[in-house]
Amino acid sequence: MISPNTKVTIHMASSLDGFIARSDGRVDWLETSDEFAAGEELDAAAIETFLNSIDCYVMGSKTYETAIGFEAAGLGWAYGDTPLFVLTHRTLARTRDTIQFHSGDLAELITGQLRSRFRNIWIVGGGAVAGDCLRLGLADEVRYSILPVLIGDGIPFFRQLDRDVALHLKEVKAYKNGMVSLCYQVRR
Amino acid sequence: MISPNTKVTIHMASSLDGFIARSDGRVDWLETSDEFAAGEELDAAAIETFLNSIDCYVMGSKTYETAIGFEAAGLGWAYGDTPLFVLTHRTLARTRDTIQFHSGDLAELITGQLRSRFRNIWIVGGGAVAGDCLRLGLADEVRYSILPVLIGDGIPFFRQLDRDVALHLKEVKAYKNGMVSLCYQVRR
Repeated sequence: MISPNTKVTIHMASSLDGFIARSDGRVDWLETSDEFAAGEELDAAAIETFLNSIDCYVMGSKTYETAIGFEAAGLGWAYGDTPLFVLTHRTLARTRDTIQFHSGDLAELITGQLRSRFRNIWIVGGGAVAGDCLRLGLADEVRYSILPVLIGDGIPFFRQLDRDVALHLKEVKAYKNGMVSLCYQVRR
Repeated sequence: MISPNTKVTIHMASSLDGFIARSDGRVDWLETSDEFAAGEELDAAAIETFLNSIDCYVMGSKTYETAIGFEAAGLGWAYGDTPLFVLTHRTLARTRDTIQFHSGDLAELITGQLRSRFRNIWIVGGGAVAGDCLRLGLADEVRYSILPVLIGDGIPFFRQLDRDVALHLKEVKAYKNGMVSLCYQVRR
């Protein structure tokens, strides 16, 4: 049974010109050095409480490879002990017990499996998975965090969206590091 | 002599996925129907005061053709009696005295001509002109107004930006119609 309180959220960080990574996958531009005096602090305790509210993550295989690359480089694992589902047809390294690979249909995974088991489902990349989620009507919410930089070219936040998607603005937050987080409800 | 108070601002409205128009130039998606209760009112008197602070507009020829098309369709002329410079190599209809055509170099127009005559210079489209302005280091400020809609494909806000441009967040405003306006200073 699908709980009416189940929510599927797409969240990624983006450059102002709408790219989540350079064409070769690099995200070095995420390290900006802006200061926005009127912004909120990104307080570690608040971030932890927020991350603890997420019940599972879903990501594409390239995002997963970026995540395990970060961990291998000593930059840590961003997803804690939260279950993480990776969409892939390839055989990839499984670096921890919380990781599950899924080679089937995205709609079947989210609607058929995850919505009945998890309340707060986060899709965290990349652009192809985010685009598919919207195109297939699987997402309830889009959280779009804009870094204060233009990078000119790269992988777009949403790939292959073949129609308009109307949104409802729910929340706007600006942070001391110049990041602006927009939260939208997907309108049906 | 160039006044130190002269400012060149790029301003356009964009979909959340970063497009200023559909691929065929249509901007029908600008008419969204969102309501953001916590947003500011777009008050007519405040808009007029704000528009009166703009000393001249610069635009590309396609943006100009869209503007005169709007006027011909009875939708009004958005630029009042403010001088308007149109970048073009073509011969276009000149519908009012405030319009001047410029077939030369963009940097020469802005730095050589406009900065000495006007204090508050607004570049209002399209993506090619905006991209050129940033690429050539001609812009001081980017005002990016995000409508609550995704359109999937179209003309990007910045075309052919061949390098990163670091920005400083100056202002964030959200309006009752769900539009979010971000103002950034271009960092040198």
